[in-house]
Amino acid sequence: MGAAAKQVTESFKAADLIINPSTTFKEKPDPNGLVFGTVFTDNMLYIEWSLASGWEKPHIKPLENLSLHPAISALHYAVELFEGMKAYRGVDGKIRLFRPRLNMDRMLRSAIRATLPGFDKEELLECIRKLVEVEKEWVPYSTSASLYIRPTLIGTEPSLGVKKPSKALLYVILSPVGPYFSSGSFSPISLWADPKYVRAWKGGTGDCKLGGNYGSSIYAQREAMELGCQQVLWLYGDDHQITEVGTMNLFLYWKNEDGEEELATPPLDGIILPGVTRQSILDLASKWGECKVSERYITMNDLTTALKENRVKEMFGAGTACVVCPVSTILYLGENLHIPTMENGPQIATRFLNKLTDIQYGREDSEWTVVVS
Amino acid sequence: MGAAAKQVTESFKAADLIINPSTTFKEKPDPNGLVFGTVFTDNMLYIEWSLASGWEKPHIKPLENLSLHPAISALHYAVELFEGMKAYRGVDGKIRLFRPRLNMDRMLRSAIRATLPGFDKEELLECIRKLVEVEKEWVPYSTSASLYIRPTLIGTEPSLGVKKPSKALLYVILSPVGPYFSSGSFSPISLWADPKYVRAWKGGTGDCKLGGNYGSSIYAQREAMELGCQQVLWLYGDDHQITEVGTMNLFLYWKNEDGEEELATPPLDGIILPGVTRQSILDLASKWGECKVSERYITMNDLTTALKENRVKEMFGAGTACVVCPVSTILYLGENLHIPTMENGPQIATRFLNKLTDIQYGREDSEWTVVVS
Repeated sequence: MGAAAKQVTESFKAADLIINPSTTFKEKPDPNGLVFGTVFTDNMLYIEWSLASGWEKPHIKPLENLSLHPAISALHYAVELFEGMKAYRGVDGKIRLFRPRLNMDRMLRSAIRATLPGFDKEELLECIRKLVEVEKEWVPYSTSASLYIRPTLIGTEPSLGVKKPSKALLYVILSPVGPYFSSGSFSPISLWADPKYVRAWKGGTGDCKLGGNYGSSIYAQREAMELGCQQVLWLYGDDHQITEVGTMNLFLYWKNEDGEEELATPPLDGIILPGVTRQSILDLASKWGECKVSERYITMNDLTTALKENRVKEMFGAGTACVVCPVSTILYLGENLHIPTMENGPQIATRFLNKLTDIQYGREDSEWTVVVS
Repeated sequence: MGAAAKQVTESFKAADLIINPSTTFKEKPDPNGLVFGTVFTDNMLYIEWSLASGWEKPHIKPLENLSLHPAISALHYAVELFEGMKAYRGVDGKIRLFRPRLNMDRMLRSAIRATLPGFDKEELLECIRKLVEVEKEWVPYSTSASLYIRPTLIGTEPSLGVKKPSKALLYVILSPVGPYFSSGSFSPISLWADPKYVRAWKGGTGDCKLGGNYGSSIYAQREAMELGCQQVLWLYGDDHQITEVGTMNLFLYWKNEDGEEELATPPLDGIILPGVTRQSILDLASKWGECKVSERYITMNDLTTALKENRVKEMFGAGTACVVCPVSTILYLGENLHIPTMENGPQIATRFLNKLTDIQYGREDSEWTVVVS
């Protein structure tokens, strides 16, 4: 094809996949006792992009170190984004993804915000499906473990200008992960709520999965741990709105100010990550129709008032890693607030956990899953 | 040395430098017409750190691609920071750095905020001095060009956990840069001021030089350009405080509300990067004592009122790249505000430019410079 006829490729195609998998095989670890995100499978998906040529053909090839120029914009200006999803080995032996199109939607939104190149979401999903198929023996034979999937997109132009990169790299790596609660039952977590550190703000990037949102949170996380708490409860604004917990969305199940049973989570107003588990919990609760389901603001004052009046039933984080994660205490303004999540079952948190894992592990049919093989 | 006796090294030492420079030499470009940050010198400074062993010995070695595991925290969570400084070839033939200890101070502060390892600032400065000495022929023979120095520190632990990294890499690369205003005289810039995008916020990382602050700005910068403006004027809060311009600090020289001649720049309240040029302008103006010098809030309403009353004299950005950068217009709420910077000389901006470049290029002795060789 002559230079004049060369077309810039708007998306890679899964049909163009070049599959040259590793010929050596790492030993697969016992999924119990694995530290999250430290063991990786034998192969990766690797797709290069440039402004001049568009997307190159996608490759599945042995996982290896990346060779990156020291001036690339991912390393200087955090021109980078990621996704987090999982493949589950079901009770019927089939391997499933859970609502992966929500991840693809969010990844494309993140790419636009980061000024990284767009792509066809269905083509990327099919490439990921293929990668998981190649690595299917890495999907743990367990209904309490899974294969974590980490799509990543980074700017790779070797230039120190703060600008839209003319080169990028999309890659996907896989990591087997064990049960989040190693005891097999819920371990509730303690939170530190302090307005000193703010995770995300209006006009920023808190609703996209950009690297910068995460690195800046580690310092606060360490301060939480020094104070004897496990995670940060991120507050926002002068009224101390409750926004997220650690790297999870947050839910409150309570009797609200009007005496209604309500499942509440903060609205997607720009500072909240639109989590897949968050959306699934909202969808399930709406379908069940047993209580009011609200995307609404909750302030620390709303919470402390409700605690005093015994109106709080359960509070939990929601995310891909743990599905749901009960909260037992919040350290706020020097006081330890006790949240009676465990005393109340946790009834609704357990119900969500069971329902979602039933779908993920194929104990229940659902349109939410995509079968890998 | 036995394992028991092994001490974790709290800082690398310049005296331990292992210097194996490149034996091939790239052609040095004409500094005029260079695109910022696209050409790099032959060698780099390279220092590895791990939690287990502390800092390794520093190396000066050929500039080459980094070999990085695809799971490192710099690429996923923007655990990364950088600095920007320059080496100047003076009229006396000596090569100088300009207030490099301010960069070292800020870099260490950024490292702490990013949960990256600390180091001895004087040792790093001496390693950088050595690197520039090795690369001295790359410092342009010109008093309108310089050698840009880019120290970088990234998290390199191959783990997907959002946590303080147990491995890191500090490296420094060098890039010759030409005159910022290619015409040789000031070219004033147009700004887009819109509260839609917010650069930094209280409780965030805007006062540190972390990658995440920069990547998230590119989207707004593109929107500014689509609207015919060259840079973003970053606003903050409901009262539309003026904070920074593009990647520069901002100065306003005006007759203030009380009729005083005032040079004003926003205060270091957590959302402003403490720029070296910013500090130098404040220091010079205070020393001159010819007008009031203030670190104070300035809102868009303050500015528009002053423009109506003909009280604005000059507005300019200040940074390492351009020293000072005059502002001629601001697009705000659909209206183009004309700033009479150029009509007023710009008198004070030119005076700062001349004074600072006199110091940088050795036309004037100053305690602010450190001689490389």
